[in-house]
Amino acid sequence: MIERIAILGTGLLGTSVGLALRAAGFTGQITGWNRGAEGAQTALVAGAIDAIAADGLEAARASQIIVLAVPIYATLDWMERLSGVLGSDQLVTDLGSTKARITADAGCLFNTPERAGFLPGHPMAGKERGGAALADANLFRGAVWLFTDAPAWERSSASLELVNGWREWVAAMGSKCIDLDPARHDELVAWVSHLPQFVATALSALLEEEVGAAPELKDVGGRALREMTRLGASPYSMWRDIAATNTEAVQAALLALEQRLAHLRENLRTPALRDEFEQANRFRRE
Amino acid sequence: MIERIAILGTGLLGTSVGLALRAAGFTGQITGWNRGAEGAQTALVAGAIDAIAADGLEAARASQIIVLAVPIYATLDWMERLSGVLGSDQLVTDLGSTKARITADAGCLFNTPERAGFLPGHPMAGKERGGAALADANLFRGAVWLFTDAPAWERSSASLELVNGWREWVAAMGSKCIDLDPARHDELVAWVSHLPQFVATALSALLEEEVGAAPELKDVGGRALREMTRLGASPYSMWRDIAATNTEAVQAALLALEQRLAHLRENLRTPALRDEFEQANRFRRE
Repeated sequence: MIERIAILGTGLLGTSVGLALRAAGFTGQITGWNRGAEGAQTALVAGAIDAIAADGLEAARASQIIVLAVPIYATLDWMERLSGVLGSDQLVTDLGSTKARITADAGCLFNTPERAGFLPGHPMAGKERGGAALADANLFRGAVWLFTDAPAWERSSASLELVNGWREWVAAMGSKCIDLDPARHDELVAWVSHLPQFVATALSALLEEEVGAAPELKDVGGRALREMTRLGASPYSMWRDIAATNTEAVQAALLALEQRLAHLRENLRTPALRDEFEQANRFRRE
Repeated sequence: MIERIAILGTGLLGTSVGLALRAAGFTGQITGWNRGAEGAQTALVAGAIDAIAADGLEAARASQIIVLAVPIYATLDWMERLSGVLGSDQLVTDLGSTKARITADAGCLFNTPERAGFLPGHPMAGKERGGAALADANLFRGAVWLFTDAPAWERSSASLELVNGWREWVAAMGSKCIDLDPARHDELVAWVSHLPQFVATALSALLEEEVGAAPELKDVGGRALREMTRLGASPYSMWRDIAATNTEAVQAALLALEQRLAHLRENLRTPALRDEFEQANRFRRE
């Protein structure tokens, strides 16, 4: 029975988790902590949290589930701080976009019989701009929520019960739970999530240089251009940690795309262009 | 007074023009011709055209405005065939995505006092899949419709009247008319339209190779991946002509993006990554 949840970080994701829990029928206590007072206040007014905690550590100690909804390096910091002060009847889970480092640290800091449990999680949902004001109770509906829990870990039975309880709430928020090995997770998201983001960033930055001085020309591109550059608005503050904790997989994906673009560029007037379009069509077949 | 329009090619764009004209209040005759019988029948049933012409040339001869809504090389063929059989009280306009070649040919084949007029046009609207069945009366609403008419051309007064009349219908369909020099047009669309398409094609083709065998993993990418690869469904049959008639500008744009991606790849852990995100953010500032 989960009745007390702490959300550390009431940005877009943290606040959306609070709203989605409420929409799914969660009636327990939700306490929020945020580095900036404004984000916490917005989450409170929106009904995503019941109370603002002045001290995140205190809020965590008083809760059964602690949701870390902060960038990756901040998540790693919180894990160190929480490890010593929580007990085996508590579960920490996170929302970070890379999982190898977080899952490895969790193996050292949590999941022994005496310590709190840790469930590494990653909802594949977000927006190109952050902040509690853009939070949405339906953000996770229809999305995949990845977990990289290691099956071999020892869990206390209390911790196991909380893991199952949290998974049920994730399903109730409308997400489909998928379990992956942490290394496979990071490799997969390098292709299907990080590569699209870095391409949108590079394309947007390049176009700013080429047509940025004539903003009326952006309209010329229409819907296709808007879509292909929407992620260009994504904040460095979030992606810095992703780039730093999944560097090799992202580099491999970027290099592969550079080579693919060069191949296409060299074949704009040859039949190889047809092969590229047909291969792309296959990815989008319905 | 425009009362008789022929649409040669009732695919997505041609059929949408018919529907949009009707929605904007056009009550004259619209005759459609299409290479395949099915597309013409679909356009007729949808109400985009009043009649199917067995012979496109005959339909053109009987109309004041002839809309060429076929791929670029087919447009160039039609221009040759129509040039000798139309008169100065008729106007041909096209919807092609590159304009230098078409505008140059138009200068030779049309726009003398005795011949029909030609107005090179390019609506910045479309869908990733073609065909009359996907046509939409609102396709051009809020879009930019580019023209690359050369101001110095001699036009008969009849032709000038038709040009102004057609521009008024384009505005009535909800589009914003912008005039550009043909060379500038092709350079601009290489950046804001053709580059995004070829990037989506390369990205989709690459991802088909990487995760195509596990279709359930496509869901992991969520909305961002769907958006960044939507144009991957675009047909080779249309883009072949674009690649062949705007090769140099597209090559320059692709090469610039390859270099930008390499720069980003080499700086995933340096402060230069921040600069790229900030530059991209500027392109998407609101």
